[in-house]
Amino acid sequence: MIRQLIDKIQKTKAPICVGLDPMLSYIPEHVMKKAFEEFGETLEGAAEAIWLFNKEIVDHVYDLIPSVKPQIAMYEQFGIEGLKAYTKTVNYCQEKGLFVIGDAKRGDIGSTSAAYATAHIGQVKVGNKSFSAFGTDFLTVNPYLGTDGVKPFVDVCKEEDKGLFILVKTSNPSSGEFQDQLINGRPLYELVADKVVEWGADCMDGTYSNVGAVVGATYPEMSRILRKLMPNTYFLVPGYGAQGGTAEDLKPCFNEDGLGAIVNSSRGIIAAYKSEKYARFGGEHFGEASRQAVIDMVTDINRVL
Amino acid sequence: MIRQLIDKIQKTKAPICVGLDPMLSYIPEHVMKKAFEEFGETLEGAAEAIWLFNKEIVDHVYDLIPSVKPQIAMYEQFGIEGLKAYTKTVNYCQEKGLFVIGDAKRGDIGSTSAAYATAHIGQVKVGNKSFSAFGTDFLTVNPYLGTDGVKPFVDVCKEEDKGLFILVKTSNPSSGEFQDQLINGRPLYELVADKVVEWGADCMDGTYSNVGAVVGATYPEMSRILRKLMPNTYFLVPGYGAQGGTAEDLKPCFNEDGLGAIVNSSRGIIAAYKSEKYARFGGEHFGEASRQAVIDMVTDINRVL
Repeated sequence: MIRQLIDKIQKTKAPICVGLDPMLSYIPEHVMKKAFEEFGETLEGAAEAIWLFNKEIVDHVYDLIPSVKPQIAMYEQFGIEGLKAYTKTVNYCQEKGLFVIGDAKRGDIGSTSAAYATAHIGQVKVGNKSFSAFGTDFLTVNPYLGTDGVKPFVDVCKEEDKGLFILVKTSNPSSGEFQDQLINGRPLYELVADKVVEWGADCMDGTYSNVGAVVGATYPEMSRILRKLMPNTYFLVPGYGAQGGTAEDLKPCFNEDGLGAIVNSSRGIIAAYKSEKYARFGGEHFGEASRQAVIDMVTDINRVL
Repeated sequence: MIRQLIDKIQKTKAPICVGLDPMLSYIPEHVMKKAFEEFGETLEGAAEAIWLFNKEIVDHVYDLIPSVKPQIAMYEQFGIEGLKAYTKTVNYCQEKGLFVIGDAKRGDIGSTSAAYATAHIGQVKVGNKSFSAFGTDFLTVNPYLGTDGVKPFVDVCKEEDKGLFILVKTSNPSSGEFQDQLINGRPLYELVADKVVEWGADCMDGTYSNVGAVVGATYPEMSRILRKLMPNTYFLVPGYGAQGGTAEDLKPCFNEDGLGAIVNSSRGIIAAYKSEKYARFGGEHFGEASRQAVIDMVTDINRVL
């Protein structure tokens, strides 16, 4: 799976993914109005607004990028209707040729992780038939429970040729509280990194493993060390743009060959029309604003590679 | 919220919750047949089987217990249809007067955790209206991202009078891989415990905080230390029964007053009829087998308190 994503990154010359994390406050008034006219101020109405919003953005950027990363929480908050919009978004993006990274950060004890893996990247058996529930190409995973909590995800990756990004060092301000604690002189995130390499070793797909890592853009000095510790691990890098990470901060996430990382931006792309820089597009043309924001992000990142 | 749960624990004299974690392999043939006859071997069919199975168990045990803990992964693997069965189960249990602990182990950066909190224990705003998506009473939370990833859950707890159980020391075999690592001579799970106490301090509801902790039954010597470190924190204790924890192992999770812990059993209760001990009930009477297993579990735990 990672090899296919890399191919597409090379074709588009865009080592990025667009974070489809819609908040209702990001959605322009005319889209909200259309959805509410049809479904009222209901969960269905909210889900329809999200779907219309996502579709417009995807239609405007799909030819420029290799992948998207929908954050499932943003859909889950609208319950069943929200998750229908998630599924619709995942399917639509895949139809458009995009790889979909399900950002769900799941993780539990073995049998439960197996169910999550089935849900998001696997197939569930019902009688003699098999079904794919959410069917993303990649999934983010939380490692706090250790190997037996992660292994079921890795197993499904192997069976189905899918990929993972396991949280190593996250981009948020408090990430150091536990992740940076020193254990025999090394921070916890380095121990997690060692395990990610171990889990990914029999999951290689070309030069890189299908088991990747989440490494925040906001801590470049740590990225540099992690890049060396995990030479064959692809990094999913959140924190660029709205969270404060700059293109220069991203550089250590990449290998010499310009590969090794895929950078996410959510708000900076999908709510571009709300920022001063792209305000000229206006809410009516929010898709075009997102397209311009993608072009600018790709230029910005390629500048430092 | 925790005070209400404690009242109900005292009324039922049963410090337990039943883990509604249905696997299709647990569901007796006559239930599967009924569901498949109506919906075929489809995701709807699987979801219907799960719902029928849960309802029968709840109908047989609701008067004996204070709470249930559905593991959302088991529903999520059947996609939208599975999550409809989850919602139906949550609502039905609440109608029967049970407190519902949503076992979802969510956790992410701040704005995303806020969306998860909204989804599971909060209210989501759509226009001028508010809706509850999954509406459980308690939620399990993963702490790996630190304070800013947990705080949004705590905030919703305060607003809505709900409760949390934050992973401190999990019951699975690999839990020590990261959680037991020593930081200045103290294991990581103790640092997490300190933070849980801190997060819960302004969330008190009587003697205990609405911010609880997950502490596995399988490591009693660690439970003893955690019990002392967190005197006003309620423990959700998985790992009893099928995972290997005995009643004696549970004792250190409780305070002197016999409060302080609620013990979960999933497989041991819901799939009781499949075990030798309760085989006499047969698949046709699986609900009665579950009832007997609950009675035996309560007796076993009260024996050591």
